[in-house]
Amino acid sequence: YKKYQQSLMTYGRLPAVTRDGSRSVRISANIELVDEIDIAYSHGAEGIGLFRTEYLFLGRPDLPSEEEQFQAYRHVLEHHAPKPVTIRTLDIGGDKIAVSLDTPHETNPALGFRAIRLCLSRTDLFKTQLRAIYRAAVYGNCKLLIPMISCLPELFATKKLLETVKEELRSEGLSYGNDVKLGILVEVPSAVAIADLLAKEVDFFSIGTNDLIQYALAIDRVNEHVNYLYDTLHPAILRLIRQIVSAGQAGGIHVAMCGEMAGDPVNTPILLGLGLDELSMNALAIPLVKKLIRSISMDECRELTWQAFQMSDAREIHGFLESWIRKRFPKDYFIDQNQ
Amino acid sequence: YKKYQQSLMTYGRLPAVTRDGSRSVRISANIELVDEIDIAYSHGAEGIGLFRTEYLFLGRPDLPSEEEQFQAYRHVLEHHAPKPVTIRTLDIGGDKIAVSLDTPHETNPALGFRAIRLCLSRTDLFKTQLRAIYRAAVYGNCKLLIPMISCLPELFATKKLLETVKEELRSEGLSYGNDVKLGILVEVPSAVAIADLLAKEVDFFSIGTNDLIQYALAIDRVNEHVNYLYDTLHPAILRLIRQIVSAGQAGGIHVAMCGEMAGDPVNTPILLGLGLDELSMNALAIPLVKKLIRSISMDECRELTWQAFQMSDAREIHGFLESWIRKRFPKDYFIDQNQ
Ligand SMILES: [Mg+2]
Ligand SMILES: [Mg+2]
Repeated sequence: YKKYQQSLMTYGRLPAVTRDGSRSVRISANIELVDEIDIAYSHGAEGIGLFRTEYLFLGRPDLPSEEEQFQAYRHVLEHHAPKPVTIRTLDIGGDKIAVSLDTPHETNPALGFRAIRLCLSRTDLFKTQLRAIYRAAVYGNCKLLIPMISCLPELFATKKLLETVKEELRSEGLSYGNDVKLGILVEVPSAVAIADLLAKEVDFFSIGTNDLIQYALAIDRVNEHVNYLYDTLHPAILRLIRQIVSAGQAGGIHVAMCGEMAGDPVNTPILLGLGLDELSMNALAIPLVKKLIRSISMDECRELTWQAFQMSDAREIHGFLESWIRKRFPKDYFIDQNQ
Repeated sequence: YKKYQQSLMTYGRLPAVTRDGSRSVRISANIELVDEIDIAYSHGAEGIGLFRTEYLFLGRPDLPSEEEQFQAYRHVLEHHAPKPVTIRTLDIGGDKIAVSLDTPHETNPALGFRAIRLCLSRTDLFKTQLRAIYRAAVYGNCKLLIPMISCLPELFATKKLLETVKEELRSEGLSYGNDVKLGILVEVPSAVAIADLLAKEVDFFSIGTNDLIQYALAIDRVNEHVNYLYDTLHPAILRLIRQIVSAGQAGGIHVAMCGEMAGDPVNTPILLGLGLDELSMNALAIPLVKKLIRSISMDECRELTWQAFQMSDAREIHGFLESWIRKRFPKDYFIDQNQ
């Protein structure tokens, strides 16, 4: 088994190009702590597709200073340069509560005061984070990702704040990154419905499947009474992803996916077939996903995707994709399931 | 003012046909209690578009018997016959808790164990309600409406249960309604995404805008910190409604709307323009909505709808529709706002 693991790791170092050479996908890692950058690197991440910044705010009585944040972001950016690091701005609220923030008690926190909603009403702390990110951006290839955008006015308010922050840094004589790409997490269903309008206003999309599925199906996936309905391969979810990718392509922007869905090898062929440009996942999943991509052709992916779109039941789709991969990669898939 | 009110009431008794005679819309009432049927009738409701049955289950220690439910449903059906009465099956859970049901405590009840999810796992009480509805259907024009459908398997499970119930009634020699139309509330975003598939399986759709907006925008509208984002005329919501109506029309089924959005006169022209077949609302809103419909032409509605779809900001759309109606109906709209 060790031997297999080693041979898999060699795939980590190779680019994720389909067998026919027609399509190359960026495979990056999600990280939650600065320490995880080494694992990301050793497993072949071609950048960080999702750097969650909540850890800086949780489990402490005070807020992290601009300097502390600057050092953390700079460290990750430098470590990966010139590979891109996508920093998600604070996604607190919902199930993650920072004691320093004195957030309200809510009946439905998942539908409440969280992420960009909180940041736009607490511009003091949001500006501190944005200043730290822009200053750190000088030291690497930085991309900025805004969570939970549900409408255009929220995005415009955010962009306005970004300009203010840059102006302030300029007037203070501090250097900051000039070419930070701006993206949004597409994870609220309304953002999918207006993805064509949003695509005109940003440099990239990242599909946050965990929340998107939760909201699209109206299912709290940690609720044991209903999580049997939470389904990654629900035909509605596949259609929403297709809609987001189409809007991104029509707008000429990069479309990534950073939810858990992106790291499950069963989904790899259909995600390629759907046209995603980047898959960001738990670093441990990278070698196998790269191996799969290097072993299949885009024709196969498109054919599989077309077939899955003829089905109307999530379990049928899952069974179809799983049996395909089991047949095509009997050894890998078997081993992976028993890790 | 009384005179105006009286003149408005005469509109209640007239059909809701556009001025040009090209389009007729069914205007019906939402009711929550049996007592409300008189108000519905006196205000010109052409049926009950949403009969909420939760009141039979709330505020009491026990469950209502089949007989008690049968009498309640029969009373409403008889009172309105031959006009249709759409009975929504139990939509408990979420913010409505029945002590008799011992429902679990949930972190996000709106994304939890509610409505059809609860009914399909508590088939004892669901079957009791369905038996009562089918038996009562003999006495009027009964339509059956299932809340919170999010996927096809849920709908298939429901249809199977309906067959079982009818078979049981048949074998017991009890008479039941044979031509009860089956519909679903389209209120979960995933149902919108697969509306074309769902339309093949039911006789009608009813758009539940309150929940649909809540889930599509990921906003709990009773949460004071975020309800500023809850927006009926968000371009995403208008697009979702258009998608539902198109799928319904393509499937040849009736499409109603029963959320609060349906009863606001500001929305009347655009809802006609979008092609809805029925608007179900608070009975008090019926006379004015009928008057508006009788005074405008479908060309006007389509033109307004087209213009609204060019806008990307909910506030802009709201301002546009409101100023249109204010200009077109200065007296009515002014009085309505000051009631
Ligand atoms: Mg998220
Ligand atoms: Mg509802």
